[in-house]
Amino acid sequence: MNIRRFSTSNASFDQDLKALLAFETAQDDSIDQVVADILRNVKGRGDAAVLEYTQRFDRLDAQSMTQLEISKAELQAALDGLPAAEREALQQAAQRVRDYHEKQLMSSWSYTEADGTLLGQQVTALDRVGLYVPGGKAAYPSSVLMNAIPAKVAGVQELIMVVPTPGGERNQLVLAAAAVCGVDRVFCIGGAQAVGALAYGTETVPQVDKIVGPGNAYVAAAKRRVFGVVGIDMVAGPSEILVICDGKSNPDWVAMDLFSQAEHDELAQAILLSPDAAFLDEVQKSIERLIEEMPRKEIIRTSLQNRGALIKVNDLDQAAEIANYIAPEHLELSVEEPLAYSKKIRHAGAIFMGRDTCEALGDYCAGPNHVLPTSRTARFSSPLGVYDFQKRSSLIMVSSEGAQTLGRIASRLAYGEGLQAHARSAEFRLKD
Amino acid sequence: MNIRRFSTSNASFDQDLKALLAFETAQDDSIDQVVADILRNVKGRGDAAVLEYTQRFDRLDAQSMTQLEISKAELQAALDGLPAAEREALQQAAQRVRDYHEKQLMSSWSYTEADGTLLGQQVTALDRVGLYVPGGKAAYPSSVLMNAIPAKVAGVQELIMVVPTPGGERNQLVLAAAAVCGVDRVFCIGGAQAVGALAYGTETVPQVDKIVGPGNAYVAAAKRRVFGVVGIDMVAGPSEILVICDGKSNPDWVAMDLFSQAEHDELAQAILLSPDAAFLDEVQKSIERLIEEMPRKEIIRTSLQNRGALIKVNDLDQAAEIANYIAPEHLELSVEEPLAYSKKIRHAGAIFMGRDTCEALGDYCAGPNHVLPTSRTARFSSPLGVYDFQKRSSLIMVSSEGAQTLGRIASRLAYGEGLQAHARSAEFRLKD
Repeated sequence: MNIRRFSTSNASFDQDLKALLAFETAQDDSIDQVVADILRNVKGRGDAAVLEYTQRFDRLDAQSMTQLEISKAELQAALDGLPAAEREALQQAAQRVRDYHEKQLMSSWSYTEADGTLLGQQVTALDRVGLYVPGGKAAYPSSVLMNAIPAKVAGVQELIMVVPTPGGERNQLVLAAAAVCGVDRVFCIGGAQAVGALAYGTETVPQVDKIVGPGNAYVAAAKRRVFGVVGIDMVAGPSEILVICDGKSNPDWVAMDLFSQAEHDELAQAILLSPDAAFLDEVQKSIERLIEEMPRKEIIRTSLQNRGALIKVNDLDQAAEIANYIAPEHLELSVEEPLAYSKKIRHAGAIFMGRDTCEALGDYCAGPNHVLPTSRTARFSSPLGVYDFQKRSSLIMVSSEGAQTLGRIASRLAYGEGLQAHARSAEFRLKD
Repeated sequence: MNIRRFSTSNASFDQDLKALLAFETAQDDSIDQVVADILRNVKGRGDAAVLEYTQRFDRLDAQSMTQLEISKAELQAALDGLPAAEREALQQAAQRVRDYHEKQLMSSWSYTEADGTLLGQQVTALDRVGLYVPGGKAAYPSSVLMNAIPAKVAGVQELIMVVPTPGGERNQLVLAAAAVCGVDRVFCIGGAQAVGALAYGTETVPQVDKIVGPGNAYVAAAKRRVFGVVGIDMVAGPSEILVICDGKSNPDWVAMDLFSQAEHDELAQAILLSPDAAFLDEVQKSIERLIEEMPRKEIIRTSLQNRGALIKVNDLDQAAEIANYIAPEHLELSVEEPLAYSKKIRHAGAIFMGRDTCEALGDYCAGPNHVLPTSRTARFSSPLGVYDFQKRSSLIMVSSEGAQTLGRIASRLAYGEGLQAHARSAEFRLKD
């Protein structure tokens, strides 16, 4: 297989790396126009519009939105209908994800100053959240767990899931996952029309405060457009893994870890850094051998050939520098002292430490969220978490004494900015 | 003055309230097109493009970007040059803002499970942040404090400020504020070209990881476009205040508090809720009388007439419900037991409690941030804070024993999703 081999000692390395990482999601104007029309229509005509789009795009003959709602009994039946081993795996994964996320809960805080002035922040949950779940090839029950559980842990009162069911086919694993997470209501709608229904509300679908979850280009464009009316999570790019290995891991393990990213999508990116050139050769051999047994080998091959790389570095310190530049979504540290080494990492979505910690464990059941910042955005953003479903209000209660000192500072600065009503408002509270 | 008077007992109240709050920033396609061109040019041609735009739009004849950088000595000179009282007010405000924001610092955390598996999150600061400061009528030194201090408290290594200086005029208060906050570099550039320089980097301006700070329609459009390449703060709408009063406050104080919002901008919104109709009459009289002495009375009048309202409610519980619907940027609770009452508030940017706590104190020096969610976005977002300049990386270190239990769960779920490389990667770590 033709997988790129770079070395940091090449004169062109910086440029080569930039070219490797370059990825721009072309914003398709025609998609955006279609989406704008759909949103306008849903906002203006509510249920009737959503129903028409669903009949047309998903080939459903439902005559009312009520027929498109899935009852809690049906969700529970989907869970009960799973083979026991699968049901248990889903429940065990959910429990671990819940345990981990409970550690993220933020609490209100405040303090009182000597003059009696109280300052702090009140932390509250969002009232109502919408969860978009794709209906097609990327219909993953694990994605339901990872989006729904943090919202529920945060204390969101009502979680509304939308999932398209083209041709009427309902994915039992997805419905079972919804039952495990305690999703409150589920509608069989998708696309921009589902995003519009959640953002603006219709006669049947309640308006939410935030929409999370992955979707296709239409869903992404719709989320961008309704941002501001409601909150949204990030719009994710293709998935990525960066493995740093000292050369002492089993090359088959490392090759399979690269595959586990590459198999998602032709655009997925898998990169290996090692100071050991012979090890890179070993991994390349493992790749050639193991790929033949993979059912998704064509996707893996395309991904590795177009976007993958095996990179020879001078040493592990240089590897950490490169990792900080790339700010990868997933970073595996397949090295001797991974915990100590992780202190050198400033930017990554998730850090998998040690030879036993493959990314797949984190994707499903280790506990941390698998919704992570892609495309170098880990430089400034974080994994999805409970904190995305909570928000803060500043608390300010100034004592009568505090109003004297603060009022003088405020009025001076307000006059400096030419805002006299600000100044007068503070001065009214002065006692002399 | 013709300020709206509503009562919740009117049959049309819900509709009236919706109409009052309705505000859509029309996205201007012509602005967006100009901005797209500027960004493309800055990305491709760097310093040369930024310099040309600055010469043209700000009428500067600088021949190199170096001439557009303000030295630290000049910042310090601006601070030293202020009248002592103003300098002290600025420094006292900065110290209080710093003290408060230090309470927001997040720390890394982790825990180890019985089988030795470690899970947690590593918290790190952003490397480099850009701070946009407007040059025109909204050039507020307090805005420099509120944006720069949380970044510095978070541990951001390099803070780059951009501020347009049309005609070469440098706002001494703004430069002094930059000195107080320890801003690292300042460039006299503005508009979409400054946003582009920060987002893509040029030969002289380093690329940042996030851009914060207010700006005009061009700046807002540019921030929306570079989002993803860098992080951005929210794009703010017009400022708002909601006052809830039991009728026992000085009506002059309440009137002036409404003015302090209205004077910002003709589009600013000031609303008063009270169960006491006679008090609403009193406040209206205070408004009529006090407005005459306000230098910005025309702005105040336009704002109050077009977007203000005095609303009679049944009781304070109903007022809290309305506040939660409005989710105001600023909420004053001018009532008897404000702390107890504040527990009924789920959605607000900042809550000002008690008759002495006017919003102006919070705008300048109480400590909490004055960058707050507007236009009902407090339903899902928070005041600007230290947490906006820190981010998290998940930490996962699975023990050899943990890999056995987790590997079985993960492989089962991965096969269920048709992701065989995920499953195999987990299975490689199983010992039997």
